[in-house]
Amino acid sequence: MNEYFNAKIKELSERVNNALNEYFNAKIEEARRISVNHYEYYSKLKDFVLRGGKRLRPVSLIMAYKGIKGVIDEGVVRASLCVELLHNSSLIHDDIMDRDEYRRGEPTFHALYREWYRRVKAELNEHFGVSMGILGGDSLFNMGFEILSNAPFHPSLVIRSLNHYVEAYRELVDGMILDMMLPLLPSASEEDYMLMVSLKTGALFEKSIAIGATLAGGSELQVSKLSEYAQLAAQAFQVRDDVLGLFGGEEVGKPIGSDLREGKRTLIVIKALEGATQDDRIKLQRLLGKRDLTIQEVEEAKRIIISTGALNYAQAKALKLVEAAKQKLKEAKPPLNKEAEAFFIELTDFFIERSY
Amino acid sequence: MNEYFNAKIKELSERVNNALNEYFNAKIEEARRISVNHYEYYSKLKDFVLRGGKRLRPVSLIMAYKGIKGVIDEGVVRASLCVELLHNSSLIHDDIMDRDEYRRGEPTFHALYREWYRRVKAELNEHFGVSMGILGGDSLFNMGFEILSNAPFHPSLVIRSLNHYVEAYRELVDGMILDMMLPLLPSASEEDYMLMVSLKTGALFEKSIAIGATLAGGSELQVSKLSEYAQLAAQAFQVRDDVLGLFGGEEVGKPIGSDLREGKRTLIVIKALEGATQDDRIKLQRLLGKRDLTIQEVEEAKRIIISTGALNYAQAKALKLVEAAKQKLKEAKPPLNKEAEAFFIELTDFFIERSY
Repeated sequence: MNEYFNAKIKELSERVNNALNEYFNAKIEEARRISVNHYEYYSKLKDFVLRGGKRLRPVSLIMAYKGIKGVIDEGVVRASLCVELLHNSSLIHDDIMDRDEYRRGEPTFHALYREWYRRVKAELNEHFGVSMGILGGDSLFNMGFEILSNAPFHPSLVIRSLNHYVEAYRELVDGMILDMMLPLLPSASEEDYMLMVSLKTGALFEKSIAIGATLAGGSELQVSKLSEYAQLAAQAFQVRDDVLGLFGGEEVGKPIGSDLREGKRTLIVIKALEGATQDDRIKLQRLLGKRDLTIQEVEEAKRIIISTGALNYAQAKALKLVEAAKQKLKEAKPPLNKEAEAFFIELTDFFIERSY
Repeated sequence: MNEYFNAKIKELSERVNNALNEYFNAKIEEARRISVNHYEYYSKLKDFVLRGGKRLRPVSLIMAYKGIKGVIDEGVVRASLCVELLHNSSLIHDDIMDRDEYRRGEPTFHALYREWYRRVKAELNEHFGVSMGILGGDSLFNMGFEILSNAPFHPSLVIRSLNHYVEAYRELVDGMILDMMLPLLPSASEEDYMLMVSLKTGALFEKSIAIGATLAGGSELQVSKLSEYAQLAAQAFQVRDDVLGLFGGEEVGKPIGSDLREGKRTLIVIKALEGATQDDRIKLQRLLGKRDLTIQEVEEAKRIIISTGALNYAQAKALKLVEAAKQKLKEAKPPLNKEAEAFFIELTDFFIERSY
């Protein structure tokens, strides 16, 4: 089964990458007619999107479609690009907001254009990079719309899908606002955290799957149950991801403890602050947001998080979310295609078992 | 006739404002359920959009619809908001890129949030304002999509309209890229200028009218002729606007000569550089982009622009564009509703006669 899952991810992500390639190549050719700068701009956008990423959103969109139709066709592969483009659009804008310099091991989009300016004009112009990054995110979001508006499906299905797309972006932006505002609050609750996760991580995954199910002409109960599955699975993913950020190995991707250094209110931190002795709470609060946290201090934070039961709590929560997600799959009526259902069950296990 | 024109603008812009009000009030109520910060954010977006502006884009969308259907209904008024929201989205992002502090006499959106942060945290955080401005533009663009996707028209008409909307934004962004890049070039031609005008000013006006005509179920020749009309009329507007920026009174809105101070390559400047004696060309080049230009220097630039015939050239060009635009209206088949046709003829005259 696991073999099927891995093979399916590989096969579909390759098809998505091929479709992305083809889409961008046409855009780049069109841009050549405007100016060499436009040619370069669209080429940079292509490179950014094609850098990597597991394509879990478009692949899940496609599998939701298969869950209802039983087959995969070129139309849905093409349509699935919309959520990958939306995701990349939000990454470019998010990287500006977080002042991040690297994304998937290479410079962020705004950093690329800051360096471009430095080469052309031999001077530093941070603002030029930011400006081009704003436009870059805008372009990708618009491209996602273009692709979905032109998806080769019945117009009324396309319009219902567009509403999911709009809603995904609305929730994503609302989540980013919450992210900007949470550090300004004196404290955060588990509820705040789960709300942010459902908006920032859950919404796009949920809507990806809803778009696939809608384009396939799924029943209301199929679309809504798949959506609920996706939201719960994404929440499990994020809870687990935050745990791995502190208790996983360096191979997780970001340096151990970087969430602590940034002062992020993850679930384990929120629960630890709630359950700690007064001494430990003060200690943990002092460590949160400390940019130059030492390994010893990270270990101290871990000790507090374990001693309060916050680690166990988060692990159990992720498992509970996964079980609830799987249950939703079974409630879809008519029942889903068995292959697709098995895929989505494997996907949740992948979300919480992965150690990378 | 002129009275009809003014009354129509007034009547329709009021209907547009009422619909905007209603739309935003619903959004603000929804946002209240997320957090008080979201409530405030959507309220600020509403205030920004409702600050002013003549609503020429939605009004023209509505009149294009009338040009084909002969009537105006609530559906098209609601749909027309999409282009006003798109326009405001681009203003918010543009203001960040241009580092503008004021828009319609009040702080720009990013400046509002920079000041909000200063009040809340008692410290200056320029980047916080920029981040909220990025999100603000994103939200408005997405709202425009939401409104158009849900417009109460046949789904296939809605999808065709969405394609115009996508195309408008693509061209707008391409125009903004050109705007970023032109100052890096050693010189600009009339062709460069007209391309930028057609992308930055023309595209959204053209697509506004194309959306109205499409929603009305217009024939291919009606939609294309109205679009051509709009593109030419918008170009005439911009050529004239740039002339007024130097040769109009202070009542035009921006300080006389501000385009010179910013070093903008407007048509009169491009033609003057082409036609000037070597001495005058060097003088004019020295004045372009000089931040502290005196009144005497502005007068010197005007003298050069007049002496080369560049002023006459631009005035004649605007008139020629207007005549060509009017001609397109007559080529629509079946012919347009007479009232709407008269409105669009008046609109072009308004574009080039206005001295404010």
